[in-house]
Amino acid sequence: MSEKKLILVSNDDGIDFPGIKVLTEIVRPYGDVVVVAPKTAQSGMSHSINSTSPLFVKQLQKDKTIERYSVTGTPVDCVKIGIQQLLNGRKPDLMVSGINHGSNAAINLIYSGTMGAAIEASLHRIPAIGFSVTDHKETANLQLVEKFAPIIIQKVLEKGLPFQTSLNINFPDISIKDFKGYKICTQTKGLWIEEFDKRIDPYHNDYYWYQGHFDNYELENEDTDEWALANNYASIVPVKPDLTLYTFIDELKNWNL
Amino acid sequence: MSEKKLILVSNDDGIDFPGIKVLTEIVRPYGDVVVVAPKTAQSGMSHSINSTSPLFVKQLQKDKTIERYSVTGTPVDCVKIGIQQLLNGRKPDLMVSGINHGSNAAINLIYSGTMGAAIEASLHRIPAIGFSVTDHKETANLQLVEKFAPIIIQKVLEKGLPFQTSLNINFPDISIKDFKGYKICTQTKGLWIEEFDKRIDPYHNDYYWYQGHFDNYELENEDTDEWALANNYASIVPVKPDLTLYTFIDELKNWNL
Repeated sequence: MSEKKLILVSNDDGIDFPGIKVLTEIVRPYGDVVVVAPKTAQSGMSHSINSTSPLFVKQLQKDKTIERYSVTGTPVDCVKIGIQQLLNGRKPDLMVSGINHGSNAAINLIYSGTMGAAIEASLHRIPAIGFSVTDHKETANLQLVEKFAPIIIQKVLEKGLPFQTSLNINFPDISIKDFKGYKICTQTKGLWIEEFDKRIDPYHNDYYWYQGHFDNYELENEDTDEWALANNYASIVPVKPDLTLYTFIDELKNWNL
Repeated sequence: MSEKKLILVSNDDGIDFPGIKVLTEIVRPYGDVVVVAPKTAQSGMSHSINSTSPLFVKQLQKDKTIERYSVTGTPVDCVKIGIQQLLNGRKPDLMVSGINHGSNAAINLIYSGTMGAAIEASLHRIPAIGFSVTDHKETANLQLVEKFAPIIIQKVLEKGLPFQTSLNINFPDISIKDFKGYKICTQTKGLWIEEFDKRIDPYHNDYYWYQGHFDNYELENEDTDEWALANNYASIVPVKPDLTLYTFIDELKNWNL
């Protein structure tokens, strides 16, 4: 006899954003759903935690198959307090994060609050998936995710994921008829190059607004997530929390420090 | 003819904390130093950026061989704006971050603003080192770092580091006579288990303070940074920004999504 599944949902754009509402509806057919999401927008919050002030938690909904809570913290805070305090000891069978409005492909992964939440869930050995669309606007078209997310959600519920692993899934901003399906990828190498917009406030202080562009070091590499998105695929990158550069260990040992 | 070296310094505890003052003095013998650090404490800020409000930058010092700037942002913001706006186009030969008051070993690495800054510098292909001590108190003893950091700093200035690589270095809280030296390590697998302290405010709202302990999955593994610290070594973990779990790619492809 199989018990009903439990699915934890979070995001980084905040609990009232369209993406998390659509994602919540996508996962509801698979079990009981608990949404624990930031009260306010937390884009770019990466894996940060709010360790210097307390977290306020507010229950917004409690029905038979769905509960919703807002938290005055980061996406990682939401996952931690969700697991520890709001699930009555039940362990989720799946955690989903997003749908993020804006790409989390390539190096965006490490700045992403959406993926911060997914990685945190994976640390607790909950299979976790972050969903993003490349269009960052609040009005982004989420139909592609609505139609194709169930395929990967069902597979992960059925097969699980390896130890402390999550999936970083990005969808291109194209119509359903142009979509070519999923592609398993590696995280594209590169970096954001900033071109700050410098201004001076009325009190003669310098201040800067972020602007920039992504410098792709692997433009021709068909294995990368950026290539997949540019060629009408949704990219799936399996993600682990271990940053050790194993290939450099032996050389470092030879430095004889 | 060799030009004078340029060294960029940042941290996450804020520009006025003891650790960054000590680290600045440690690197001054090696070249010109530019300190760009957060105006206020940014512990646990990971790789986050402040993308929704502008960054205010204040020059605190400008002498012949040292400049100091405070930034109203995260450690990653400091590195980005330092490289792009405050170095007059010069590329640093080395970036150092810290000295962090508190361990950044094991999974702490991914929550760490200190290492966020170092990883960001490494993305820009600047060899970068994050230094931390396991004692989180503002009065932490930094003498071990003062005495032994020059060894690794000189090596990195001489040899460089691989593509987009940084070093995560943690020192144990012991006396110099008990110190056994550096040990090259891997990032210990495990996670933080939270035990939130729940309270109710005067207006009947639930709120929670973080408490918790680290669950070490590799207690017996002598290659790990936690083992090194527990056995009176300073741990050095080489760090890369690529989170792809390469060993799972082929199996994922067989899911035939």
